[in-house]
Amino acid sequence: MDEKKQEKHQTKPIRCIVKLGGAAITYKDELEKINEENLHIVSSQLRQAMISGRSLSEKVHGMDWSKRHGESEVSFTIDDIGEYAIGDSDRFVVVHGAGSFGHFQASKSGVHKGGLEQPLVKAGFVATRISVTTLNLEIVRALAREGIPSVGISPFSCGWWTNERNIASADVSAVEKAIDSGFTPVLHGDAVLDGSQGCSILSGDVIIRHFAAELKPEYVVFLTDVSGVYDRPPVEPDAVLLREIGVRENGSWYVVKPVLQDLNKQVEITVAAHDTTGGMVTKITEAAMIARLGIDVYIVKAATSHSLRALSGELRNNIPDDWLGTVIRFVRQDRQQES
Amino acid sequence: MDEKKQEKHQTKPIRCIVKLGGAAITYKDELEKINEENLHIVSSQLRQAMISGRSLSEKVHGMDWSKRHGESEVSFTIDDIGEYAIGDSDRFVVVHGAGSFGHFQASKSGVHKGGLEQPLVKAGFVATRISVTTLNLEIVRALAREGIPSVGISPFSCGWWTNERNIASADVSAVEKAIDSGFTPVLHGDAVLDGSQGCSILSGDVIIRHFAAELKPEYVVFLTDVSGVYDRPPVEPDAVLLREIGVRENGSWYVVKPVLQDLNKQVEITVAAHDTTGGMVTKITEAAMIARLGIDVYIVKAATSHSLRALSGELRNNIPDDWLGTVIRFVRQDRQQES
Repeated sequence: MDEKKQEKHQTKPIRCIVKLGGAAITYKDELEKINEENLHIVSSQLRQAMISGRSLSEKVHGMDWSKRHGESEVSFTIDDIGEYAIGDSDRFVVVHGAGSFGHFQASKSGVHKGGLEQPLVKAGFVATRISVTTLNLEIVRALAREGIPSVGISPFSCGWWTNERNIASADVSAVEKAIDSGFTPVLHGDAVLDGSQGCSILSGDVIIRHFAAELKPEYVVFLTDVSGVYDRPPVEPDAVLLREIGVRENGSWYVVKPVLQDLNKQVEITVAAHDTTGGMVTKITEAAMIARLGIDVYIVKAATSHSLRALSGELRNNIPDDWLGTVIRFVRQDRQQES
Repeated sequence: MDEKKQEKHQTKPIRCIVKLGGAAITYKDELEKINEENLHIVSSQLRQAMISGRSLSEKVHGMDWSKRHGESEVSFTIDDIGEYAIGDSDRFVVVHGAGSFGHFQASKSGVHKGGLEQPLVKAGFVATRISVTTLNLEIVRALAREGIPSVGISPFSCGWWTNERNIASADVSAVEKAIDSGFTPVLHGDAVLDGSQGCSILSGDVIIRHFAAELKPEYVVFLTDVSGVYDRPPVEPDAVLLREIGVRENGSWYVVKPVLQDLNKQVEITVAAHDTTGGMVTKITEAAMIARLGIDVYIVKAATSHSLRALSGELRNNIPDDWLGTVIRFVRQDRQQES
């Protein structure tokens, strides 16, 4: 099936799947508060990355014609809409996490543990979906204001569901259809139904892994609130940024760059307490599974010059020394034996 | 296929499909302004109708745990959640129109006419979806605050699409799955992809007709901003409320009650100018197609004692003389010949 899928997408490949980390676009310690500045920069960088290589006017044609809070009129004239050619370079998919949206509601009620027959879990399911779709709408609007033809797509609405918390059914055809029509789908971690336990949380990272396997993008970018993956919690003074992580065919991974003093030393990574769907260990594991497919994964701090370079795809052939971030890539067996 | 579907749903029937008319829940002349008072009453009536016949505490267990605009904290404690048994009487589906959400964006750009290769249409598609999903989220929240386990489902996200503006693919399995899990799906008129013209608008009324055929509800209620269907525009002083409309097997319809003085007189109905998806004529035509399936349709003014009676299902066997509204129902040929 994988080969069939690959063939299917060879004609019109997806260029990039972007994960907007919840911690990068929200204030994780403040309930339901968006980091508007970061979201604006991220949206603008996405636009630049999507049109890179094409000569387009610098003028942004906003696609959010809604009233803003506190404003009574729409600031839009049809004259604002210029020529906008749809190119294959536009083929991006955006998936975002929940940050300070959804986590409160999910963890208070235990939606991830299932049990819809319990009133609290059922109410929590509803409350979680309200919170994450609120964030989704705001992200779609931010992207639309930058002229990105963004369309929100909720996994629950797509009819995706899990079984024992793993994806059981997640048809990507609606997402593919949207991309083929020139839109940028924006998905999110969501509360979904679960065949064995009633309901569960489908995280943005799991969605990305699924998409990577199905859509075979050229590369995947994780935008986070730190510069990449470190050998210990990045707040510690001696924390070392891991520049490159190699992934073996069996899915295990090792640090390629920098060469650590103690090669056998286990990389210390703590699971971030705020993340109910798992922290950095989950992220590396998910990223490694993507890299195994031969797809480069870049983990980089959002809204920096480094994130723009990652999104633009300029790292694909060569990682410049002045780029700050972590590359996770598949390493063929013969190269491993050389090192 | 119809028989198979009918059989499938005989064990767990949908009780009611409710259309929240855009004009009833928004101020149609004010851009993106919700009629909060009506929406609150409608939500409260829906709750009462859904639990009717069951002994439930009067206490409402709110399921919207989000921050309200301008508030910094969530007003929620887990103690608020009591026992909530899911019953078959809860099996409602809500579909809402756009009102002053979406229409502006759709009509300015001509989304309903298609042509996604035009920048204006593409931008309008994005803008329309942002506007209608904003309304959807607010309706889901209003229902959740009344303790209704509402989940927003967008037709576009479901992967529904049209061909020459007619439904080409609209799999209801995600909606059915949500109902079977005890949730109340809340759908809406949406911008969708169209096989022949690129894109189009799928109206709430067309969705309801599709659902009626697929889900075979016991009855359908259209909540509007007037008392029902009149023989001429209801603002005219001599306008007569049509109490009952009969639908023949071939889909044509005629006025049963009251007996009009001029029986051959064509009922005068103007298409409301604000409604890009068609006005009252479309509504009667759609309603007649539902009635042909043997499903009673009630058109009634939202947020009145009459709407509560319609939603509760008490009109099914007998229409009381003091009920204000229009019933549209299938009339067997033999009864037609009697009259």
